[in-house]
Amino acid sequence: MSAVNRVWTLASRPEGRVSVDDFAMVEAPLDTGELAQGQVRVRNRLFAVAPTIRNWLNPPERAYRGSIPIGGAIMGMAGAEVLESRHPHYRPGDRMVALSRWEEFSILSPDQAAVPPFPVPPSTTFEEAMGALSPNSLTAYFGLIQIGRPKPGDTVVVSAAAGSVGSVVCQIARILGCRVVAIAGGADKCDWLKAVCGVDATIDYKSEDVAVRLRALCPDRIQIYFDNVGGEIMQAAVDHIAPRGTIVLCGQISAYDTGEPAPGPRDMMKLVYGRVRMEGFVVGDFIDQIEDARDRIRTWVASGELVVRTDVRAGFETLPSAFADLFSGRNQGALLVEA
Amino acid sequence: MSAVNRVWTLASRPEGRVSVDDFAMVEAPLDTGELAQGQVRVRNRLFAVAPTIRNWLNPPERAYRGSIPIGGAIMGMAGAEVLESRHPHYRPGDRMVALSRWEEFSILSPDQAAVPPFPVPPSTTFEEAMGALSPNSLTAYFGLIQIGRPKPGDTVVVSAAAGSVGSVVCQIARILGCRVVAIAGGADKCDWLKAVCGVDATIDYKSEDVAVRLRALCPDRIQIYFDNVGGEIMQAAVDHIAPRGTIVLCGQISAYDTGEPAPGPRDMMKLVYGRVRMEGFVVGDFIDQIEDARDRIRTWVASGELVVRTDVRAGFETLPSAFADLFSGRNQGALLVEA
Repeated sequence: MSAVNRVWTLASRPEGRVSVDDFAMVEAPLDTGELAQGQVRVRNRLFAVAPTIRNWLNPPERAYRGSIPIGGAIMGMAGAEVLESRHPHYRPGDRMVALSRWEEFSILSPDQAAVPPFPVPPSTTFEEAMGALSPNSLTAYFGLIQIGRPKPGDTVVVSAAAGSVGSVVCQIARILGCRVVAIAGGADKCDWLKAVCGVDATIDYKSEDVAVRLRALCPDRIQIYFDNVGGEIMQAAVDHIAPRGTIVLCGQISAYDTGEPAPGPRDMMKLVYGRVRMEGFVVGDFIDQIEDARDRIRTWVASGELVVRTDVRAGFETLPSAFADLFSGRNQGALLVEA
Repeated sequence: MSAVNRVWTLASRPEGRVSVDDFAMVEAPLDTGELAQGQVRVRNRLFAVAPTIRNWLNPPERAYRGSIPIGGAIMGMAGAEVLESRHPHYRPGDRMVALSRWEEFSILSPDQAAVPPFPVPPSTTFEEAMGALSPNSLTAYFGLIQIGRPKPGDTVVVSAAAGSVGSVVCQIARILGCRVVAIAGGADKCDWLKAVCGVDATIDYKSEDVAVRLRALCPDRIQIYFDNVGGEIMQAAVDHIAPRGTIVLCGQISAYDTGEPAPGPRDMMKLVYGRVRMEGFVVGDFIDQIEDARDRIRTWVASGELVVRTDVRAGFETLPSAFADLFSGRNQGALLVEA
């Protein structure tokens, strides 16, 4: 164990677009004190650089699940290895994916975590656990299946469809017999969605009018809209939702980096008369079904039906620049940084 | 049968607040021609003057379920008596509550109606059928039970709580063991809600800060918000909704008379992280369960647990002024006009 712990902290609250200058790396003395009962000391090995972290950079009055204070360590999911444990369920050498911090070593309290740690069995790499079997894949799985409740033949529209959640939603919807229309930015992403994810149609929001294309591509309207972005794309989908359609509220990435909250649909009467259900969810609500979900996902991956792409980068020091890339669409698949 | 048919028509589209001048009464020659197969000729006896009619006065581009053309008859639910029938299920003398028109005599096509007619048995008066057992009561019943899905002990907040839907929601919620907070305008309505409907607390939105009062009155937050109004009151309820809370989207009366659609919540991320469900519905979706619902409502009314107030006025010629009263809060209970 080295005597210092490198920690990425919040240097300033981003106003609008996040910048690498909003982060500062500090070298803190390594805490080697005795653990409290229920704590584990871990080495963070692989960090998930996820859009949701952007929410935690906001001030407390705009925070949803915690606001990182100025000077505080950045929170995020990480693949972590237990070094020392005073928790009855964890032993040194155990591996988990946990809500951790952007630092080399952390002390975690699994029982108090907002997102309970997921164990990573010896047969699974951190990259798999944070790729195909990651919280993002599970988010896609539970959001589509439990909230969207697709039936074969449904038209499912997915925004941010090339992302780590969206691309899994697209493929599970296809596997379940739905017609899938994927919205993504740029021809490369759209090509990949068609060629690899097997979606029925794509809309490139950077070069096409989403509302016009949705009307053209969804003659029976939209039974399920899986919303990762909010904003104008959500509005276009609401305007074309089928009677008794469902809007799965997963994320609002269009607003994360603007400094403004993402507003709801312009006309709520459409939801009344359309008998539309909009429902938010978080993956932690389905913890009791996670093993079943992982088994199904593993089977789909093994058969080649489901492809989960990861974008693994090296170097603890690259975390802020990897994070900034998220909001410029420069990543392809789940963005992971190895420490 | 008289030789003329008095008809209230749309003279001009209201911009904002509706006015009696937006309506014109015409005396049309009575259509005594032969009915087509499937049609019935009815005498409209009792008209339900309901806020939803306001939506049909909007131009087609802002219409949800039909837009009345300029010069066209006003549509609305009415208690109607069959005079003549070429429909296999209706005979002269049968009575029904049907989507009809503001005219003395109508020709209806029950099988093509957007809202199927409800039969009114001989033991039931039109006032009962359009009061306690009315589509509004059924809207309250199905919206609360099927969409809200209350559990005993839940805190249920109801807006426009003194209205014909809201007051029934309040009472059914109370009967089902919920804690009920009723939002209404004015001390008289609030007093009535406490004294007669048995709600636990009231908020007078005309004299109190709804957001502040909701926080004070709902220490465990809001499990179900039954939304009849939209706008700022909806926003205050969303801001205080419990995790996994439900927002029943029934109406948006705050916007009906403004000429502008009612927008959704300001910050959709609250719905994501809060795992909030917002769901619209229309009573016609539950047609197969209507007899059960009526039986339960009848039992509650007979035992005195449920009180349904009607405000019956006389005179076909008063329809527009009765309608304008709806939006100034001057009615108490379901507003009905006898022809």
